Amino acid sequence: MGGEGPDHPYSRAVATYRLEIAYDGRAFRGWARQPGMRTVEGEIGAALERLFGPTRLTVAGRTDAGVHALGQVASFTTAAAPPQDLGRALNALTPPDIAIRSAEPAADGFDARRDARSRRYRYRLLTSRVRDPFERGRALHWPWRLDLGAVEACAEALLGSHDFTAFTPTDTKHTHFERRIIAAGWSRPERDPEILVFEIEADAFLRGMVRAIVGTMLEIGTGKRDRADFARLLSGQPRQEAGDTARPHGLYLAGVSY
Amino acid sequence: MGGEGPDHPYSRAVATYRLEIAYDGRAFRGWARQPGMRTVEGEIGAALERLFGPTRLTVAGRTDAGVHALGQVASFTTAAAPPQDLGRALNALTPPDIAIRSAEPAADGFDARRDARSRRYRYRLLTSRVRDPFERGRALHWPWRLDLGAVEACAEALLGSHDFTAFTPTDTKHTHFERRIIAAGWSRPERDPEILVFEIEADAFLRGMVRAIVGTMLEIGTGKRDRADFARLLSGQPRQEAGDTARPHGLYLAGVSY
Repeated sequence: MGGEGPDHPYSRAVATYRLEIAYDGRAFRGWARQPGMRTVEGEIGAALERLFGPTRLTVAGRTDAGVHALGQVASFTTAAAPPQDLGRALNALTPPDIAIRSAEPAADGFDARRDARSRRYRYRLLTSRVRDPFERGRALHWPWRLDLGAVEACAEALLGSHDFTAFTPTDTKHTHFERRIIAAGWSRPERDPEILVFEIEADAFLRGMVRAIVGTMLEIGTGKRDRADFARLLSGQPRQEAGDTARPHGLYLAGVSY
Repeated sequence: MGGEGPDHPYSRAVATYRLEIAYDGRAFRGWARQPGMRTVEGEIGAALERLFGPTRLTVAGRTDAGVHALGQVASFTTAAAPPQDLGRALNALTPPDIAIRSAEPAADGFDARRDARSRRYRYRLLTSRVRDPFERGRALHWPWRLDLGAVEACAEALLGSHDFTAFTPTDTKHTHFERRIIAAGWSRPERDPEILVFEIEADAFLRGMVRAIVGTMLEIGTGKRDRADFARLLSGQPRQEAGDTARPHGLYLAGVSY
């Protein structure tokens, strides 16, 4: 019966969008939607639902409760017409601890999770003797000694492919524990001499992996654990062999590469 | 009889202490103690009371609800013996949105308010188009055009002594409205190109004065108000002649000089 012209609602092509998102993770129970919980996916999903109807979001890096993001990437597809300025509409419909940094059409079939080539995480330590109220919830206060040579040696040992079984909870949904570390290192930003940053890039991460790596490095950096121990942990040891999981509030998903 | 030796409690000399304090003002109803309200003075006063018994704090700059401090200074005197590390003890007894940056003995008779020669305030604007979750409550989001030449001309006009009646609430406790501005200017910190900072130093400030000055400058910088108007406001005009009071969360007491 004809009627399949470009203006007919049933014929509208499905369009794919890519969102780049920052959030202060303090008041969220993480990224993933959970009934009755305030989550980043829940907030952005509710905004998308108001604009497009029910919409499934795909995300590059699920973050845990309290973890922040500077450059999280998510994607969705919809057959509904977008508002004129999608980013502005989403920012108006989401709370102020989330920012939609960009919202752009993506190539057909773009999938923020599957297409990501690497993720980059950052862990921030505040090394001043006295705490800083403006770093509360944003950096782990670490007024203690830290042997930078020892933790930098750990970072170097991380490079390449390893079995990270020791760095993810035992009750895991993962079935494959090898990950390839592309870059890892410690630095002190020139503009912020009280902050010490560990940055790590990998093809993908296991749940809790960066925090378990950081927690283990901190034990080595304070002499609680022998530095030679670290390389052994990268060959598929049980979780209890590695160190404690560092608290979430120092961790940021810094960016995703495609 | 006798017993007035140095170890007798009744003979202990009264000692004066100086505190340097930072706080994130978001969750406080300002500095000054108010019954039933969470205030900075209330929190630090409670900590001092546990260490020394009831203690009266004197402060260099009373800040309003939501206003932050990087280098607030307060003083108190006590005849009671201090703990070995007073700063550490106070940090342990105060919440994490306050930091006692230093706590040192001061010269006899030191008074943080009376002895202050000048106070320095800073107002931060976030000028990026999209909000930043990590600047929420710490900078006023100002994605609009701002004529930097016009607001810089206002800053220059501020220098020297003026009658600031137009820049403080009409229901004031102040009786004297002249203040001397020692420095005032706009800048963009190199390390943070999305932030625009107004900094002002004066012998003393009226209540709400910096925020009313900033609000008026923003009206001038966006063309809502004529720039020639500003100098006239510095000669003792009624409050309603000047602009709106800028929101508190961009304001910081940056430091105090003695």
